[in-house]
Amino acid sequence: MKESKVDVLIIGAGPAGVMCGNGLARAGVNVRIIDKRPNKVAAGQADGIQPRTLEVLQSYGLAEPLLRQAAYMVMAAFYNPGPDGGLERIGRVPDITAPTARYPFEATLHQGEIENILLTAMRKEGLEVERPTVPTSLEISTDEEALQDPHAYPVKVVLQHLAGENESEVVHAKFVVGADGAHSWVRKTLGIAMDGDQTNYVWGVIDMVPSEGTNFPDIRNRTAIHSLNGSCMIIPREDDKIRLYLQLTGTDAVDPITGRADLSKWGPERLMEVAKKTFYPYKIDTTPDKVDWWTIYVIGQRVASNYSVHDRVFIAGDACHTHSPKAGQGMNASMNDTHNLIWKLTHVLRGWANMSLLDTYAFERRKYAQDLIAFDKRFSALFSGKLKSEDEEHGVTHEEFLAAFQGYGSFTSGIGVHYAPSAITEPAHQSAAANLTVGQRLTPHILVRAADARTVEIQDMCPADTRFKVLLFVGDLKERSRLEALAAALQRPDSFLQHPAAAFDIVTIAKGRKDTINYLDVPAALRTHWTKVLVDDMDVLEKQGGKMYEAYGIADAGAIVVVRPDGYVGIVAPLGQLDSVDTYFAGFMKSQTA
Amino acid sequence: MKESKVDVLIIGAGPAGVMCGNGLARAGVNVRIIDKRPNKVAAGQADGIQPRTLEVLQSYGLAEPLLRQAAYMVMAAFYNPGPDGGLERIGRVPDITAPTARYPFEATLHQGEIENILLTAMRKEGLEVERPTVPTSLEISTDEEALQDPHAYPVKVVLQHLAGENESEVVHAKFVVGADGAHSWVRKTLGIAMDGDQTNYVWGVIDMVPSEGTNFPDIRNRTAIHSLNGSCMIIPREDDKIRLYLQLTGTDAVDPITGRADLSKWGPERLMEVAKKTFYPYKIDTTPDKVDWWTIYVIGQRVASNYSVHDRVFIAGDACHTHSPKAGQGMNASMNDTHNLIWKLTHVLRGWANMSLLDTYAFERRKYAQDLIAFDKRFSALFSGKLKSEDEEHGVTHEEFLAAFQGYGSFTSGIGVHYAPSAITEPAHQSAAANLTVGQRLTPHILVRAADARTVEIQDMCPADTRFKVLLFVGDLKERSRLEALAAALQRPDSFLQHPAAAFDIVTIAKGRKDTINYLDVPAALRTHWTKVLVDDMDVLEKQGGKMYEAYGIADAGAIVVVRPDGYVGIVAPLGQLDSVDTYFAGFMKSQTA
Repeated sequence: MKESKVDVLIIGAGPAGVMCGNGLARAGVNVRIIDKRPNKVAAGQADGIQPRTLEVLQSYGLAEPLLRQAAYMVMAAFYNPGPDGGLERIGRVPDITAPTARYPFEATLHQGEIENILLTAMRKEGLEVERPTVPTSLEISTDEEALQDPHAYPVKVVLQHLAGENESEVVHAKFVVGADGAHSWVRKTLGIAMDGDQTNYVWGVIDMVPSEGTNFPDIRNRTAIHSLNGSCMIIPREDDKIRLYLQLTGTDAVDPITGRADLSKWGPERLMEVAKKTFYPYKIDTTPDKVDWWTIYVIGQRVASNYSVHDRVFIAGDACHTHSPKAGQGMNASMNDTHNLIWKLTHVLRGWANMSLLDTYAFERRKYAQDLIAFDKRFSALFSGKLKSEDEEHGVTHEEFLAAFQGYGSFTSGIGVHYAPSAITEPAHQSAAANLTVGQRLTPHILVRAADARTVEIQDMCPADTRFKVLLFVGDLKERSRLEALAAALQRPDSFLQHPAAAFDIVTIAKGRKDTINYLDVPAALRTHWTKVLVDDMDVLEKQGGKMYEAYGIADAGAIVVVRPDGYVGIVAPLGQLDSVDTYFAGFMKSQTA
Repeated sequence: MKESKVDVLIIGAGPAGVMCGNGLARAGVNVRIIDKRPNKVAAGQADGIQPRTLEVLQSYGLAEPLLRQAAYMVMAAFYNPGPDGGLERIGRVPDITAPTARYPFEATLHQGEIENILLTAMRKEGLEVERPTVPTSLEISTDEEALQDPHAYPVKVVLQHLAGENESEVVHAKFVVGADGAHSWVRKTLGIAMDGDQTNYVWGVIDMVPSEGTNFPDIRNRTAIHSLNGSCMIIPREDDKIRLYLQLTGTDAVDPITGRADLSKWGPERLMEVAKKTFYPYKIDTTPDKVDWWTIYVIGQRVASNYSVHDRVFIAGDACHTHSPKAGQGMNASMNDTHNLIWKLTHVLRGWANMSLLDTYAFERRKYAQDLIAFDKRFSALFSGKLKSEDEEHGVTHEEFLAAFQGYGSFTSGIGVHYAPSAITEPAHQSAAANLTVGQRLTPHILVRAADARTVEIQDMCPADTRFKVLLFVGDLKERSRLEALAAALQRPDSFLQHPAAAFDIVTIAKGRKDTINYLDVPAALRTHWTKVLVDDMDVLEKQGGKMYEAYGIADAGAIVVVRPDGYVGIVAPLGQLDSVDTYFAGFMKSQTA
């Protein structure tokens, strides 16, 4: 049988898998990715991209192609039963309530196109999905020494390549990522349990183009309808398409024996019958040729009990968590799982970081998934539950629903995701940048480059290039002694630059004005390139930017802000306390001479 | 000899030619493009893209790839001789002073890359440049009937395909566009004279990456240096490159017999010697491997006496105008020449418009070129001339230079280009939109779509798709009678829709608020698609947009604004005066039944 070696083998080419494949290939990691399906998904399934995920895609240079094709959900509309038995609009509110979101909307696009964007990017890095290929066995070495050695190949996976000659192959991998979906073979093979339950809520989904006669005023907004016939969520989609989530209250949607959704009695016509009743007195219709995809499902809410075995085989995406799709979280959670893992694997494989860095993947992402399920329980109950009325005194009021919708906005947008303290998240000196939150993503902010006055978004200075960004808020360049002390501290043999220098990108952010600042006043040690000196000022039209020190809560003494390669703030410290930053990096990185 | 027919033959694949080829191919016109060079230009030559040209490229969907690669010139810096014989900075000001510029900077990128963006777009439309191919003869029929018939092929061009078997071909074309540069074969063959003169100003240009030791604080800004050793203009370029324009005051730069620049005694080393003296006491240097391109030239200022013969053969770009390059106009003038011609040729070829529409090409673009030369004479004299000093009492003061730089900003940015009244430019009802200018490009403005509250830039609703955009400022949707009267007027048999309906795109802009407006309140005749109803409101974050009626000076009675396919305002009229618009279109368009 053919045998081979690879640094990382990814099993599954859904959103979590292709995100991982693209990120690792971009980082130059030796990686392969397989999928059991002969072709990528063509329609349906997940479709919502949250604001934080847009920021993440932008950090890989991939927001533009997505935004070009996607629909934007800017406003959310709410309808309740009206006095005449029909529907009445309660109001419209902004769909995104997280005030710092760089992209203040959700983008929707069918999963196949989103995967396509990642597959295209991956292909440019020289990586293709091998398909149809299935894993048939997976073994992890029990040799403790091998498990601790980042150069060892302790995972043995047997693959079956179903195309062509149906060849088998033994792959020896340093690491394996199981991104193989809700019914994950990797998870089952590792014997990892899913903790949680099914609910009683049954929903239908239909993706289609509504007919001309449709006269619902909010058909292009994200709309939550509570009707006497059940609830409905409208998700506008690319071009003229929309998705409807329809609550199914009849009993024949669930197989009484398996407890799973029973698709045999359903189809698009019957789902549209439900829609017509829910929308009454508004008209909604479609024709069979305009239906893209449909399904029905029972909401389950579960999280995997472990996210890895020995930090050698990881699971990610739907393999780890399952929940209702209506809040548009699934694909986002999946892509952000592997976004969290990519740089950690890369740092370990390059010999930059200790193996222990990999512990933080499960620590950060499993906690997030648990929070997600807790949110989903509450949101599903509110949306699938009965409305408060004379007959239903314990029902949900619109005010409760709206409060939940907006209150969870920080979480559902992904903006508020907060990683707890760990080796890579050190909030001890939080007050040095009081309005940033260590463990949350770097807040977007616009400022200008000192050398050419070009406007830049600080998030764009922090691309997903596997480097830590060390932002030096040095204040006024006239204060020479402070600048020189910092330059000297950076050049000490025990500064964090003792670790591989390629792991760091230094950006200096001065106070000043674009029409008078001289970028050459920044000492050479703090200025690796002319593009790396920024000034906290407005753009040339004075329309945006500036006041970054204030927005970040940085005191006159200045600050150091370390942004992790995934865009999350790792540590902040006063400018004079470079040793805190040195200690932070020493906690998980190897020194250059080691 | 091989014979063939084509609707449009373009001769020359520089900026004017590829712009034309892409635009016509995109419009589905039967077009060919040839060039005598075996390969496209690799470096040097033109490099500056002005704000209006960015808007135009955006209208073809091509701003994004350019902006991704280009350097931005945001600020302009000025240096004069200092008291100690060296240089001193007078100050920095915004490089662009046109307040409505959508892109408030100049972009710079080498000509080859800009052509590449257009060539790539053209290739997607199925059009490739045939090269190396030269025209060897060109004849225009003298048959008056054929010249008046848009279906006739009155131009006969013999081509020599130099690649492969060196084949000849006779091409019968409906129209020919000569975009074959300053030494245009087409222009000479047609016997069109260039009116104007050479100047005495001699300049050198060098594109290079400066060495590490360069310590000039404005090396990444557009900088005008008046030194005792002559003048210099710095043009920052993509990546770390810069261009220097250097005034050459010695006599050996001009061949005394031909009056042309004499390159034989010059080279990059000697140009850098001039630069070093000009920059003193600042250091500037480079190494031979970092020099991309260089040349020296004598400034000539000329305009072609005619832009076409019988509206069948046109010339465009450098074939029509020559002037100094330092104000960064050349490539912009060239691309805007053919941008002006593309839609006119297309409308005539489709049988939508009368042949007389083509008269407006020379009318509009030759006038523009004359204005450009007038500007260039003044600017060149100010920049090449001596500074005012004790010895030079008639010299130029910094204040004069800055005033000229800023005063001409509207013109040089392209934003202020103003086409005079003609069949396609009708200012009679200018007061209906008092703050727009009929004959100038549509001012950019942000508003939101009524159906989904998505932010849109009105310029992006007016792409270069060869259609006239009819913007209906209908006011409040509650005023039903006004809306219904307008819908009825549009549906009358003598409304402008009697002309081919595909030539028009109707966009309705209502007053109202995104959280309450119902786009279905717009009568169906004014609402061809849900994306075509806009509301004059701010974005969801209330950071931009809104107040468009005020910005455009539109009275409560509403207005109709017709935007030509090239983005220029053709006519404005009060909402109740649709007949003025009908008359406007009847002036140059054929009726549908004709």
